[in-house]
Amino acid sequence: MALSLDQLNGLAVADFVDAVGDCFEFAPWVAEAAAAKRRFATVTALHAVMIAALRAASREQQLAFLRGHPDLAGKAARAGDVTAESKSEQASAGLDSLSEAEFARFHRLNDAYQAKFGFPFMICVRRHTRDSILAQFERRLLNDAASEFAAALQEVFYITRLRVAAKVTGEGMPKVDGRLSTHVLDTHSGRPAAGVAIELHELAGERTYHVASAVTNADGRTERPLIGERPLPIGRYELRFAIGDHYRSRGIDSGNPPFLDIVPLRFSIAEPEGHYHVPLLFTPWGYTTYRGS
Amino acid sequence: MALSLDQLNGLAVADFVDAVGDCFEFAPWVAEAAAAKRRFATVTALHAVMIAALRAASREQQLAFLRGHPDLAGKAARAGDVTAESKSEQASAGLDSLSEAEFARFHRLNDAYQAKFGFPFMICVRRHTRDSILAQFERRLLNDAASEFAAALQEVFYITRLRVAAKVTGEGMPKVDGRLSTHVLDTHSGRPAAGVAIELHELAGERTYHVASAVTNADGRTERPLIGERPLPIGRYELRFAIGDHYRSRGIDSGNPPFLDIVPLRFSIAEPEGHYHVPLLFTPWGYTTYRGS
Amino acid sequence: MALSLDQLNGLAVADFVDAVGDCFEFAPWVAEAAAAKRRFATVTALHAVMIAALRAASREQQLAFLRGHPDLAGKAARAGDVTAESKSEQASAGLDSLSEAEFARFHRLNDAYQAKFGFPFMICVRRHTRDSILAQFERRLLNDAASEFAAALQEVFYITRLRVAAKVTGEGMPKVDGRLSTHVLDTHSGRPAAGVAIELHELAGERTYHVASAVTNADGRTERPLIGERPLPIGRYELRFAIGDHYRSRGIDSGNPPFLDIVPLRFSIAEPEGHYHVPLLFTPWGYTTYRGS
Amino acid sequence: MALSLDQLNGLAVADFVDAVGDCFEFAPWVAEAAAAKRRFATVTALHAVMIAALRAASREQQLAFLRGHPDLAGKAARAGDVTAESKSEQASAGLDSLSEAEFARFHRLNDAYQAKFGFPFMICVRRHTRDSILAQFERRLLNDAASEFAAALQEVFYITRLRVAAKVTGEGMPKVDGRLSTHVLDTHSGRPAAGVAIELHELAGERTYHVASAVTNADGRTERPLIGERPLPIGRYELRFAIGDHYRSRGIDSGNPPFLDIVPLRFSIAEPEGHYHVPLLFTPWGYTTYRGS
Repeated sequence: MALSLDQLNGLAVADFVDAVGDCFEFAPWVAEAAAAKRRFATVTALHAVMIAALRAASREQQLAFLRGHPDLAGKAARAGDVTAESKSEQASAGLDSLSEAEFARFHRLNDAYQAKFGFPFMICVRRHTRDSILAQFERRLLNDAASEFAAALQEVFYITRLRVAAKVTGEGMPKVDGRLSTHVLDTHSGRPAAGVAIELHELAGERTYHVASAVTNADGRTERPLIGERPLPIGRYELRFAIGDHYRSRGIDSGNPPFLDIVPLRFSIAEPEGHYHVPLLFTPWGYTTYRGS
Repeated sequence: MALSLDQLNGLAVADFVDAVGDCFEFAPWVAEAAAAKRRFATVTALHAVMIAALRAASREQQLAFLRGHPDLAGKAARAGDVTAESKSEQASAGLDSLSEAEFARFHRLNDAYQAKFGFPFMICVRRHTRDSILAQFERRLLNDAASEFAAALQEVFYITRLRVAAKVTGEGMPKVDGRLSTHVLDTHSGRPAAGVAIELHELAGERTYHVASAVTNADGRTERPLIGERPLPIGRYELRFAIGDHYRSRGIDSGNPPFLDIVPLRFSIAEPEGHYHVPLLFTPWGYTTYRGS
Repeated sequence: MALSLDQLNGLAVADFVDAVGDCFEFAPWVAEAAAAKRRFATVTALHAVMIAALRAASREQQLAFLRGHPDLAGKAARAGDVTAESKSEQASAGLDSLSEAEFARFHRLNDAYQAKFGFPFMICVRRHTRDSILAQFERRLLNDAASEFAAALQEVFYITRLRVAAKVTGEGMPKVDGRLSTHVLDTHSGRPAAGVAIELHELAGERTYHVASAVTNADGRTERPLIGERPLPIGRYELRFAIGDHYRSRGIDSGNPPFLDIVPLRFSIAEPEGHYHVPLLFTPWGYTTYRGS
Repeated sequence: MALSLDQLNGLAVADFVDAVGDCFEFAPWVAEAAAAKRRFATVTALHAVMIAALRAASREQQLAFLRGHPDLAGKAARAGDVTAESKSEQASAGLDSLSEAEFARFHRLNDAYQAKFGFPFMICVRRHTRDSILAQFERRLLNDAASEFAAALQEVFYITRLRVAAKVTGEGMPKVDGRLSTHVLDTHSGRPAAGVAIELHELAGERTYHVASAVTNADGRTERPLIGERPLPIGRYELRFAIGDHYRSRGIDSGNPPFLDIVPLRFSIAEPEGHYHVPLLFTPWGYTTYRGS
């Protein structure tokens, strides 16, 4: 249950720390430091003050904080030996249901990372697909210690911003959600294409994971965004539109098999808090897509 | 080695039958009947006369002719116990390299077909992909005897037209070849996109088979058609264009990962002797495709 | 000042006729007949009852009603000798500012129409451009008497529906307004095109009339529809987008003069109460438009 | 009549000068100087040697040469008192049929130019539209003397290159011709649009001049380029496609009036020796154009 910013501002220090201490994994001292700065005008300000407290801490404290985090897809996560937040975050990218080979790969990466940097790999899992997590993991293993320490703190910023936004509601919420939407227009008939089945898949190496399914309404849109009210995980996607069925049901012939049947649009998301609008304008014989707005 | 129509017209009957008798599987009597009608003004006329001879034959002769064909992907083909033409035709659609499961599926279909119609399934393999052969097989198994007999003779028409066109050259060649081409335009720069890597894959259920690879020239085209100088196999295809690399090498940024990287165009071919031109007009942020000319 | 439907329902008959009698030109008897049917649940129902009263009248009454209307762009209109409604309606299509030649042309058409049908030409001017009024005039002059009488009553329906909707507000307003909108996307940068100057012109023979000007906002849209809160006049239009300036100001070169400078989109409106969305997707080297939604 | 390069190479000096002396207006001394460098391997080399001779001449000789040219659209041109080449060149851009107002405007520009630079305005008229000539004239009037002298010699290069290419044929012709072409595809039917009427107009201020008309063939192209076998005049153009008629004749309805009727594409040409391919992909409800290849 989210607390209102007003309620939070009114709490005693101990209750304040109880309420938002978990935003920083096993580090209630961050919330304690922030409590002194009440009251907060916006939720964004609350988060900024907590981050400032972390940045003001000694290097030892910061390192200890980083070391308090579980390995990504590691044994602790498997055993359930992590905070509820970590558990749910790791599940969001499917890290709780890896194959043995994938688990082994993460294990090797975790070991190499710990050996090189002395703390676990930090990444705001909710902002990435499986593919992107692995790509970041391998890329950041090449960093020098200073760059990687900065990169880890940047990820802490993203992780805790999401946790704060989930726990506290009120004025000046930080922007943490993105939106992926589409619009389907049949330029053969000059009308929105209603009733078109759409599927969204996440691409991961040679595999694909189903993300969402929808059917277009009378305006050629989906009732809800394909992804919404959460960060858009960075990664590669394929949208599939069943336009063969659309024309078949209207008795419009474009050969047997039809020239176009399932139309795939493959694109990447790079801005988790952005709006990606990916429309499809089509006839039985061609189509256009673009990043819209 | 192809014979010229003039040479063929000048041959004695026995030599004529030697030369083109194999066009009709194990049925030199078709060529014999045709030999009487020399001389032929066009290769198309030669084929038409042979087909007329087959159509003029008794039902028993026609049935015997159909029964002289090997099963599709059958044991005879595996054992090499078929004409060279049949062997090469079956290889053209990959029927010589099926998995055990696929082989078993064909086996069941062959048995069911033989049991229902009393002759082997005829299909002009060079005009179909794996997927299309199976789709036709399953669809035609539902035919009644009369429709299916007509369908089988129509396929004989396609098979023998290709064989005649391969053996005889001269005036009035039948149209047996199709062409699949593309053209890649970068509407960000207003120029043809040179050096873009393209791959063509055949889709078969959940699997894909590589058909061709090419790199565009200065005019944004491939030096040779993606498929040419043969019938276009009916079926589903995916063209893939490496436009992410195109922009990366030009220092044009569209996010990390780039909004568009590999652009897939999925389409079907329904007319094996047609021209399919499938261009791509693109920017880093969108694209258009259509059946062109 | 518009009256609320509730207020209207509560009026005495004489006041009711005072309030909405003018909706039917010089024919308060229509309102009198309708007054008996109070109270009305919707504004649409009020209009329907008035129209039913007109349709229930004798042919003589209907003819007298039609004859009570002024000629289109006629002397009475010039002299101001018509109802305020008629005056404002005729002005809406520019009929109050015709050249002498145009005035003479209307004069000839009015005379020919009166001579043939015995009443003035009726058309809901607010639903048409100059061009369309003349096209309708010439087309309907060819009608037989029965078809044209029906056509005239249909136009009375449109005219009075607009008048009723202007005088009375409340539940169940009739749909009398259309909307023309656009959206401008720069697919070279993958973003909405902000600050693009747009002009809308009405086409009339070889002449054009300026209708609206706007500049796109940060989302590539205009703050208000190009035409809205009124019927869209049937006719031909040209939208002009200053995309040359857009790229010039961004230092993007496409030749001198630039390949694209002012992009004109020429289209027609046929449904005055419809929504026409006419977007432009463009790069320095090409563009796409379509009827969107 | 063009001479072959071989013939030219074999001529005596006097005959050589007779043959190509006119390429440089009233300056046979350029050809005389070039004659000494025979023989020429290519026509391009011949032109290069003549240009080198001009560049090697004294400033006084060059000035005298420039002064030997007639004013653009001047009195001499009107009176026919110029070389046949100049006369035909000025006619190519319609400078022989100006209105009195246009004539007066050129007169003022000529006077101002002569007063500032001391020689007449040089421009390769065949490479420009009316509009572009005026734009260049006004722009170059702002040049300083040195820049403008260089600009004038560059135009001499273009003028004489065209004259040489018209007089001499053979190996290594200079590239002097451009090409404007189109291709019309109906993506509603997936086929080239045959029988579509096309008009090309040159834009000049508020006026337009008809340049070419054509009707598309079965492949959706025009039999000949819209402009070809000559330089493309730099300037602004409008291509108009009668796609309303195309669909009307096929019984395809898109409203009354149809949403799209005459589709105008407005673009500029900046490279006279380039290839401009401007295709139209359309349905009854939208279209795409781009600079193709």
